[in-house]
Amino acid sequence: MTTERTAWLVLAALTTPGNRELGNLVRSTGPVQALDQMLHGEGISPHLAASVDVRLKPIGRTPAVADRIADDMLRGADRLEARIVTPADDEWPSALADLTAVGRGNDPLHLDTDPPLCLWLRGPLDLAEALAQSVSVVGARAMTTYGEHVTSEFAYGLAERGWTVVSGGSLGIDVTAHRGALAAGGSTVAVLACGIDRVYPAANAGVLEQIGGEGLLLTEWPPGTQPHRTSFLARNRIIAAATQGTAMIEAGSRSGARNTLGYTRRLGRPAMVVPGPITSMMSVGCHIELRQPGTVLVSSVEEIIEEIRRVGEPAVTTRAGQLREDVLDALQARILDAVKPHRATSAEQIAAAAAVSGRDARRTLPLLAELGLVVADPDGYRRTADRDR
Amino acid sequence: MTTERTAWLVLAALTTPGNRELGNLVRSTGPVQALDQMLHGEGISPHLAASVDVRLKPIGRTPAVADRIADDMLRGADRLEARIVTPADDEWPSALADLTAVGRGNDPLHLDTDPPLCLWLRGPLDLAEALAQSVSVVGARAMTTYGEHVTSEFAYGLAERGWTVVSGGSLGIDVTAHRGALAAGGSTVAVLACGIDRVYPAANAGVLEQIGGEGLLLTEWPPGTQPHRTSFLARNRIIAAATQGTAMIEAGSRSGARNTLGYTRRLGRPAMVVPGPITSMMSVGCHIELRQPGTVLVSSVEEIIEEIRRVGEPAVTTRAGQLREDVLDALQARILDAVKPHRATSAEQIAAAAAVSGRDARRTLPLLAELGLVVADPDGYRRTADRDR
Repeated sequence: MTTERTAWLVLAALTTPGNRELGNLVRSTGPVQALDQMLHGEGISPHLAASVDVRLKPIGRTPAVADRIADDMLRGADRLEARIVTPADDEWPSALADLTAVGRGNDPLHLDTDPPLCLWLRGPLDLAEALAQSVSVVGARAMTTYGEHVTSEFAYGLAERGWTVVSGGSLGIDVTAHRGALAAGGSTVAVLACGIDRVYPAANAGVLEQIGGEGLLLTEWPPGTQPHRTSFLARNRIIAAATQGTAMIEAGSRSGARNTLGYTRRLGRPAMVVPGPITSMMSVGCHIELRQPGTVLVSSVEEIIEEIRRVGEPAVTTRAGQLREDVLDALQARILDAVKPHRATSAEQIAAAAAVSGRDARRTLPLLAELGLVVADPDGYRRTADRDR
Repeated sequence: MTTERTAWLVLAALTTPGNRELGNLVRSTGPVQALDQMLHGEGISPHLAASVDVRLKPIGRTPAVADRIADDMLRGADRLEARIVTPADDEWPSALADLTAVGRGNDPLHLDTDPPLCLWLRGPLDLAEALAQSVSVVGARAMTTYGEHVTSEFAYGLAERGWTVVSGGSLGIDVTAHRGALAAGGSTVAVLACGIDRVYPAANAGVLEQIGGEGLLLTEWPPGTQPHRTSFLARNRIIAAATQGTAMIEAGSRSGARNTLGYTRRLGRPAMVVPGPITSMMSVGCHIELRQPGTVLVSSVEEIIEEIRRVGEPAVTTRAGQLREDVLDALQARILDAVKPHRATSAEQIAAAAAVSGRDARRTLPLLAELGLVVADPDGYRRTADRDR
């Protein structure tokens, strides 16, 4: 029988990242049944069926095809000294599920924005732990000495205070952010727009190797994928969703960093921007963003941390009779939503339905039970019925 | 009999600028009766009575004392090649009346913030006309070359497009703004914190003389007054209220320009700030302001003009049955408020009650009549009664 982990891997292999139709299917049926439907072309759109057909054609639609694809992926990962994590793994960062609430339309290609189905990793850090307290630092490839100075200071300062610095591994601000975090002996994660086996850009080969050795290289694209316009834009949604906020340092008016900032804003996370001289072309994009509602100016590491803490604060709840649900954070609320009302299901099933890690589900469900929102029974958890209250 | 103009002059001479109690008295009784009460100590607080006593002691409380004070003021103005305008004069800028809606508390001295009662002017421009399309450009005394460059560009560009540049005549950003406007052959107004006969700061003697010859020097402080902390802060409220918006370029964390920006915000006018490098001490105050709600980043002359136009736009009114009052701008609404419901009063009386110039009242009242909000009759204007509708 196909495991959830295998199902996630094969679903990723059969589609292009971000597919919303598949995401909705998985959220309603779980990954194992979704894969079954995908392999049999049942209850999926012709578009999605065609995507499966194209990928299965070279290997044939045999009963064992799923295991074969998964085995190939896992062996490929081993060979590349990488690993693959899926929502069925403890290391999966639950925050990515927030992408389910983000619609299309932010980028010029109108990409689908669903969470990734699996992530290829290389590096010694636990992904979920590394991202638990993390900030994205993004910006222009063609940075100035001002941008370099500020980025180095910020990345070093954030890493020094225990924050993981996430960026895209590109030239300019990105690589300066990674370097700053490494220099502080801190954690850094590079989210790539290519396969884990590619070195792009070549000029960053040294630092990318160092990140793979001390931090984490991460991508949703399979080995062999060259970076292209689509993958850069798709990658940006992961940078925005993986962290608690994004700080943009230097950006021209058409910078891709503005795309990352747009995702951040749509995710309801702090979209932070460092200003610069209005005479600098490399701050034009920053100032355009700062004139938009929902963007906040930051001029220090302290202000970045303050913005993230402010958004993370639970809403003050003093009104009597207010529903206890209102005190839940986004993760807790999502897990509660995935608990079935009439039939108890296991923490793992709930995790899959909520698209969060099993670890997060196992941690959160006892708390929800304590709040009286779910009931634990021998088969797992179910929603508290009126008769239980 | 004392004229309104004389009354305004003498009221100004008897008090310190910004006095809210006196302002409220004038708004309820008109300046002539307010002066009568002041001279007789009737219906005024002991504090205000003491202020009058101190000033009348040297000259005695004779029946003709008001005329004598006014004559002295006017002869003083002539001698200094200056003139004095009051709310009874066409040249009075009605926008200053918006200060009546601004409470204390923005500045460290908790000054009263009432509009000035008279203004000393030197220069060829008509004050109301000069301010009809105007922007304040303020900032640090200790500017950097960046601030100097931006200020020159902005002031030149604003003046070139027909906007009057208003500032405080100080060192640094202020004088650079005045110079930029003069260089473009445009209009500039320097609002001083000292008497019209003082040259402060001495280093600006040349440009202040040029402003007095081509633009306008303006102060509410009587001749002989040296600048002091109180007068700088009081002056800032006039800079903010006289113009349609304020742009701040470079400010340290404790800059007085932030005080001007605070008044601007409380007046509901565009509080615009130019960012700079976060590494510059002279942009720290700008970035603090940009992190506050109600402050907008500007990076070009076009953006300044756009912000002012946006705020000036009348609210869209499509809902049927909406009160016609809702389409009025602040000046029109203030004039309407000053029209008595049952008894017609002259445009001049309405102007005095509204603390706007006679010219503004005479221009606006026919429009209000056209909208059916007031009724013109031989004695002046009264509010439209239900029976008139």
